[in-house]
Amino acid sequence: MNYISVEDARAYILKHFAPLEPERVPMLEALDRVLAEDVISELNVPPFNNSAMDGYAVRAADIVHAAPDRPAALRVIGDVAAGYVATRAVEPGTAMRIMTGAPLPSGADTVVRFEETSEGVETRGTGKDRDTVEILKAVQRGDNVRAAGEDIHAGEVVLPRGTLVRPPEIGVMASVGKKEVAVHRRPRVAILATGDELVDIDEPITPGKIRNSNEYGNAAAVVRAGGIPIRLGIARDNIADLTSKIRAGLDAGADLFLTSAGVSVGDYDMVKDVLNAEGAMHFWQVNMKPGKPLAFGVLRGKKDVPLLGLPGNPVSAMMSFEIFARPAILTMLGKTRFERPTVQAVLEESVTNTANRRNFIRVRVEKRDGGYVARTTGEQGSGILTSVSRANGLLVIPEDVTLVRAGDRVDIQMLDWPEW
Amino acid sequence: MNYISVEDARAYILKHFAPLEPERVPMLEALDRVLAEDVISELNVPPFNNSAMDGYAVRAADIVHAAPDRPAALRVIGDVAAGYVATRAVEPGTAMRIMTGAPLPSGADTVVRFEETSEGVETRGTGKDRDTVEILKAVQRGDNVRAAGEDIHAGEVVLPRGTLVRPPEIGVMASVGKKEVAVHRRPRVAILATGDELVDIDEPITPGKIRNSNEYGNAAAVVRAGGIPIRLGIARDNIADLTSKIRAGLDAGADLFLTSAGVSVGDYDMVKDVLNAEGAMHFWQVNMKPGKPLAFGVLRGKKDVPLLGLPGNPVSAMMSFEIFARPAILTMLGKTRFERPTVQAVLEESVTNTANRRNFIRVRVEKRDGGYVARTTGEQGSGILTSVSRANGLLVIPEDVTLVRAGDRVDIQMLDWPEW
Repeated sequence: MNYISVEDARAYILKHFAPLEPERVPMLEALDRVLAEDVISELNVPPFNNSAMDGYAVRAADIVHAAPDRPAALRVIGDVAAGYVATRAVEPGTAMRIMTGAPLPSGADTVVRFEETSEGVETRGTGKDRDTVEILKAVQRGDNVRAAGEDIHAGEVVLPRGTLVRPPEIGVMASVGKKEVAVHRRPRVAILATGDELVDIDEPITPGKIRNSNEYGNAAAVVRAGGIPIRLGIARDNIADLTSKIRAGLDAGADLFLTSAGVSVGDYDMVKDVLNAEGAMHFWQVNMKPGKPLAFGVLRGKKDVPLLGLPGNPVSAMMSFEIFARPAILTMLGKTRFERPTVQAVLEESVTNTANRRNFIRVRVEKRDGGYVARTTGEQGSGILTSVSRANGLLVIPEDVTLVRAGDRVDIQMLDWPEW
Repeated sequence: MNYISVEDARAYILKHFAPLEPERVPMLEALDRVLAEDVISELNVPPFNNSAMDGYAVRAADIVHAAPDRPAALRVIGDVAAGYVATRAVEPGTAMRIMTGAPLPSGADTVVRFEETSEGVETRGTGKDRDTVEILKAVQRGDNVRAAGEDIHAGEVVLPRGTLVRPPEIGVMASVGKKEVAVHRRPRVAILATGDELVDIDEPITPGKIRNSNEYGNAAAVVRAGGIPIRLGIARDNIADLTSKIRAGLDAGADLFLTSAGVSVGDYDMVKDVLNAEGAMHFWQVNMKPGKPLAFGVLRGKKDVPLLGLPGNPVSAMMSFEIFARPAILTMLGKTRFERPTVQAVLEESVTNTANRRNFIRVRVEKRDGGYVARTTGEQGSGILTSVSRANGLLVIPEDVTLVRAGDRVDIQMLDWPEW
């Protein structure tokens, strides 16, 4: 039997995907999506010189010799709060009381914190009504002043196209008044489970039947990757039902089609026949475990739509989704890095790999004594769904490695943070 | 000035939060939430003994001596596909063709893969019409059979209360027919920005004013943590506006109230006065940088609602959200682990900490030569929002450490995966 490697299958599949066209959305809806335009600031941020502290706005030249035993006395000519502009200038020998964020009055070049003035060392009174303040320390010109544009310059690209929008990027866009922004559209992913053995989760189970779990697992995985699932339910193993449900998915505007089951070498050819009739398909044996059977091709609809035919075993379907569907969805979202983060962990049990295939062992990583340790989630059969639900990481054993020993330090691809 | 430590402030705050009451949701909507009930399977999964391979269902006793040069010939009495139940039993000397997932016919106890039968080694024909099959290998009794209940036993708790629901857990719930499930309700988080200096993102900027970025950054951070933001806009620095907007947030059913600005020692007392009038408040100086000023208390509404008063500086607000608001939201969701995952990285530049406060340095971690390296995101002033937007991790320098040297191996708390 001819195998295709994981890399070759993935590279071939990903050639069929590119970032989807941009759409303009209210800025908050851009969260966790990728910018399809540069965000440029039209203004300086902050827009004006302002005080970084609560204190007195002064002219540095007036306080060059100030010290606790030789304070510089300045006449207080007013008070400026955040959001307001001083109506007069700080002339030599004067000072203005100033709050954090307030614009620096003209004439002033420096702010002295309350703690370094007579106001700060006195025990009573707010200082608001005083006529004179004594400065107790010579500070550098410009101290405690945030210069206009020190965060962002007018005309600067603050967030380049391709940036993932997280909460801080939302804050940056707000600070430059970016109300709407172009991001790549979310992909619509049609999900079709196939098989006469399937019953839906709210139907009674009859002899020989099993629950349709792949549709739900795939829908959740699509949401987690950032796509929009289009759930098409179950197609029975007959040409009419398979054909009509595939066309329904195309009509619903799918950007990617996911089927499950019906693509193994030994399967009845119904699913294969219908997929071949609706598009141009490859039916592969991928050199991985679980997840050997995989179909990929392009359906002909109003537009060409790539189809990934996942295996029917739930564990195999999840692993194939992880390795092939997730990067396809991320690509359509404009993301460019698909690798899961890795942690180094000490393996707590020996694991064998006798299949000569790349083995994706589901493991549970935990923090212990400041480091990470990993154990398998038990029986790794492709029918054991709980082998995935107990896992937070994958130990990937290469095709030509037959044994990884207890005590070895291994890289684990984390599906979730080890803390969860 | 009296400081409160990060730990003491956090412990005091978190005493006021507990998982919110459960709600029953359609199972797919439980994604990324925490189970408030045990999920118990009423059925075995798989519900019946079934074939793990495409092959022949046989009686192991019939093939104990089978070998390529001494095949065991068995009469083929039928064919069973997934979803169907064989209508007759496998008697001694007979075999039934079987597909992956199909129920094992009565009488049979073992499945032999096609590859180990005459069907597998012949080059033509599907085998469907043959009367006899030759078994070329003696396999163990039970081989290639998935036993009923091998994944999940009837009556078993498959997902205990407290489990975070990820795509595999969705798959498990589907496989046991769990259509709706109880999860902890998402917290509603009221967000109020305060200050006369703020203008909203779609308003013209006038002298002395800055954009309201905290409302948007906080709303995005609430969404990311799993909460539902209730955006109340900007309250001006007057008693009437502050009071009415706080009451509006309480009327909207807030479980947590977030304000920004107005809680520093030097600030005008408007915000403090109103918060004290509406509840019982603490105004703290937390021994951290950025994020020193922080208010916490409980507002009196139809129910008591905890309020976190974040600093006004956007960077300080984000760090205070990270350290105090995020764990509060996670607690209400039923989550119990708040730590960010850490990676070990080599620091590429020296960083000083002269403030005697715990310093949360924003860093960018990258993978290089198989390891992680970290650099600061540049100027760390609390007005520099881009110091956060360029960061994917935090280097936390303890209060009593004044210098971390270039080349040191440091733990970085990851805000996002280093791959992004």
